[in-house]
Amino acid sequence: MELKSVGLHEKVWRDYFRKKTNWNRKMKFLLFTFVGAHLLALNSGKAIYRNDNSQRTFEEIREEIARYGDVAKAIIDLAVYGKAQNRSYERLALLVDTVGSRLSGSKSLEKAIQIMYQNLKEDGLENVHLEPVKIPHWERGEESAVMLEPRMQKMAILGLGSSIGTPPEGITAEVLVVTSFDELQRRAPEARGKIVVYNQPYANYSTTVKYRTQGAVEAAKVGAVASLIRSVASFSIYSPHTGIQEYQDGVPQIPTACITVEDAEMMSRMVSRGNRIVIQLKMGAKNYPDVDSFNTVAEIIGSKYPEQVVLVSGHLDSWDVGQGAMDDGGGAFISWEALSLIQDLGLHPKRTLRLVLWTAEEQGGVGALQYYQLHKANISNYSLVMESDAGTFLPSGLQFTGSDKARAIMKEVMRLLQPINVTQVFGAGDGTDINFWIQAGVPGASLLDDLYKYFSFHHSHGDTMTAMDPKQMNAAAAVWAVVSYVVADMEEMLPRS
Amino acid sequence: MELKSVGLHEKVWRDYFRKKTNWNRKMKFLLFTFVGAHLLALNSGKAIYRNDNSQRTFEEIREEIARYGDVAKAIIDLAVYGKAQNRSYERLALLVDTVGSRLSGSKSLEKAIQIMYQNLKEDGLENVHLEPVKIPHWERGEESAVMLEPRMQKMAILGLGSSIGTPPEGITAEVLVVTSFDELQRRAPEARGKIVVYNQPYANYSTTVKYRTQGAVEAAKVGAVASLIRSVASFSIYSPHTGIQEYQDGVPQIPTACITVEDAEMMSRMVSRGNRIVIQLKMGAKNYPDVDSFNTVAEIIGSKYPEQVVLVSGHLDSWDVGQGAMDDGGGAFISWEALSLIQDLGLHPKRTLRLVLWTAEEQGGVGALQYYQLHKANISNYSLVMESDAGTFLPSGLQFTGSDKARAIMKEVMRLLQPINVTQVFGAGDGTDINFWIQAGVPGASLLDDLYKYFSFHHSHGDTMTAMDPKQMNAAAAVWAVVSYVVADMEEMLPRS
Repeated sequence: MELKSVGLHEKVWRDYFRKKTNWNRKMKFLLFTFVGAHLLALNSGKAIYRNDNSQRTFEEIREEIARYGDVAKAIIDLAVYGKAQNRSYERLALLVDTVGSRLSGSKSLEKAIQIMYQNLKEDGLENVHLEPVKIPHWERGEESAVMLEPRMQKMAILGLGSSIGTPPEGITAEVLVVTSFDELQRRAPEARGKIVVYNQPYANYSTTVKYRTQGAVEAAKVGAVASLIRSVASFSIYSPHTGIQEYQDGVPQIPTACITVEDAEMMSRMVSRGNRIVIQLKMGAKNYPDVDSFNTVAEIIGSKYPEQVVLVSGHLDSWDVGQGAMDDGGGAFISWEALSLIQDLGLHPKRTLRLVLWTAEEQGGVGALQYYQLHKANISNYSLVMESDAGTFLPSGLQFTGSDKARAIMKEVMRLLQPINVTQVFGAGDGTDINFWIQAGVPGASLLDDLYKYFSFHHSHGDTMTAMDPKQMNAAAAVWAVVSYVVADMEEMLPRS
Repeated sequence: MELKSVGLHEKVWRDYFRKKTNWNRKMKFLLFTFVGAHLLALNSGKAIYRNDNSQRTFEEIREEIARYGDVAKAIIDLAVYGKAQNRSYERLALLVDTVGSRLSGSKSLEKAIQIMYQNLKEDGLENVHLEPVKIPHWERGEESAVMLEPRMQKMAILGLGSSIGTPPEGITAEVLVVTSFDELQRRAPEARGKIVVYNQPYANYSTTVKYRTQGAVEAAKVGAVASLIRSVASFSIYSPHTGIQEYQDGVPQIPTACITVEDAEMMSRMVSRGNRIVIQLKMGAKNYPDVDSFNTVAEIIGSKYPEQVVLVSGHLDSWDVGQGAMDDGGGAFISWEALSLIQDLGLHPKRTLRLVLWTAEEQGGVGALQYYQLHKANISNYSLVMESDAGTFLPSGLQFTGSDKARAIMKEVMRLLQPINVTQVFGAGDGTDINFWIQAGVPGASLLDDLYKYFSFHHSHGDTMTAMDPKQMNAAAAVWAVVSYVVADMEEMLPRS
């Protein structure tokens, strides 16, 4: 920002107190304006950046972070160009090729947890242990959908997580196609006894996913006998994309599955021409009692403040299709890789770096909730909670939730990633497994990358190692390691609101 | 090109006689250089561009083509902005939603042919008729593949066209993974009694497709009991891509199917780690006697040279997955649309514009071969054969095979598409259904577009209307109509070599 007038100074100053100014602009203001304002601003800076126990100015913090330049370069060199390159990819490939997908309640998830426990032990990490969690056990069984009218066609489906099954003979019913919950409300009298098909357009995941989570409940409220949801996906090659759905007390439970974008659009076209559509849906889905599982934990114990924690994480469970390589094998394995890289370089952060591989994230953060309940008494010692669960493709940057003070610090930390040109800090660092902490005031960070690509494969048979790229994982691991190490090693914890 | 020296003149002149100069450069040379060279070049131009019966210079031909500017604009306006916009898309959607996929030998193909016959009649086109063709009848039946070792996993497959089936109990055998025919040769002693899995990388379709067409034969030669081919595809969401394969006399016939890119890569990784892979393959595929089918023909009969023909075409058959909307519904329907647009504008080209909707292209141009044999006596009257069978997305331009003279003319014709910015002429206008004519010397043209996108959906369950875009089809139809009309209406046929 160039300062062109006193009026502009005043505006900056005003914004400053309104906490709307971003800190880059603010720092430029501090550096380039006249002395009085400079001193005044510096004092205010102290006021804003001072942590509970801190007497330091932001300038001092900035200098502290800049001193990590060499360490960051060493981490990047090791992860991207050195002997650790492709390690997270290869470790991940070995696990997911060996055990396959890892649905909550499945034997393969528990096998994966045991393998990871061994892996982390053998990697020489500290305090490797499993923390017991009770998790849901749902199985899809055999399932099929056939369009009987206006012509016969097998349709690709995937039952949604927690859905009940159909009777063995299936449910055969006429279809009501709607493109929104609003349209369903308007046409409620037509829904009774029918299979409701949702052909909602894809806006983005967080907006559109409500049709998957709530579609069955809304359809059941108006008397439908089943619901089929257009897959929540950015792109499709006739690929159904599953995920969790949620029944509601007092509303009848009806079977629900996702269909492909292609079939949803085709059925919309058919009904617009006056065709009557009849589908036979068979689902062998079943909910079983909860089973025992574990969050998998490993640490590099803090050298100066061992009770203080920077948490890095991804989830080990997946849906029961594909290999769960992207969601969230990638996130879990760059989190492990972050600790491995730091350990390889003989670094000993002042705070404890804790790796958590969550269980049963896909069922609504079940492992994460139980972890939070177990550990929340120590919440004042959590400096930063990090989760990678939106892909480990070439990172665009870091998503962050926290106070303005903490955000300014994270921007300085991300400057250390300049050698691989990943320096941006975006809003909204939330994620299913870290939200409990974020909502309680702990700063949180997520890795951001190409979400169009992510939601092309998400929860589909296509979530395999083929979607992954070792070089992109190297870059993601470097970001993850630099951020977690620097925040764990800085003199002070990240300031909260 | 600016002329900067006599030396450069000489070079242009030399190239001219070597027929290496492109005609744009040549024309600029003619217009801007001194009079003697101008006259000399003009005379040579006559020599080069003179058709058998032509006394015209290229300049005269160029001026003739330029006079079609208003007609071209009218076609574009009608197709892209006018009342015909989205018509080819909507006509196509209605057909493929109604009949679904259209495999050679299937009832749905014959239903589609009958519907198209009616459509073309009702559209008011001339000489609408069906030309009988005997076509192959293969059905895939039920099919499945399960990896039994090193772990259990169902694998998505699609049997390849013309493959035999397995015994009812399936074929259970160890896998040999190779990445090329060369590797198969080197490891021939290991292949006996095994299922050969090809994990060849995707270079481009024409290079890589040999693994699909010849994979079973090469595997059988070294004693394999079945072969599984990595799908020939530019992109995958765990999508198998089928297609024809060819047995060879004297080589045992073994069952063959495509697998996904994902599973092929996974099995390569597994064997590189020393895993033994066992697969159980079940295929109910069966070849039946040839059945009756038809090429579907309609015309706008030439007003001056009715015996002379410009042929526009696409194929009506498809594979038995998806809707065959892209391959080649799009090509067939923009070809129909070309005639509809010309008819709507009350245009009467001098030559006959003939629409042919081929049958059984996917089985190796079966309908096209029989058409060629039936009509080749009239070959001297074919000015141009056009086929759209590589997608009807936003066109990049026209692919063309023909003499240099004809190519120079086609470049002038494509200038008429400047209003929609599709003016390029590329090499190699060949296509399965027009190659018989091209190889016999008739100029041929194909529509070029985004082949990465095309081979993402090609021969897969994802070849549906969702892959299609009405606006892109409008542009493709405009190109198709302008090119076919102008070439059919010009005073002379395209010159041959």
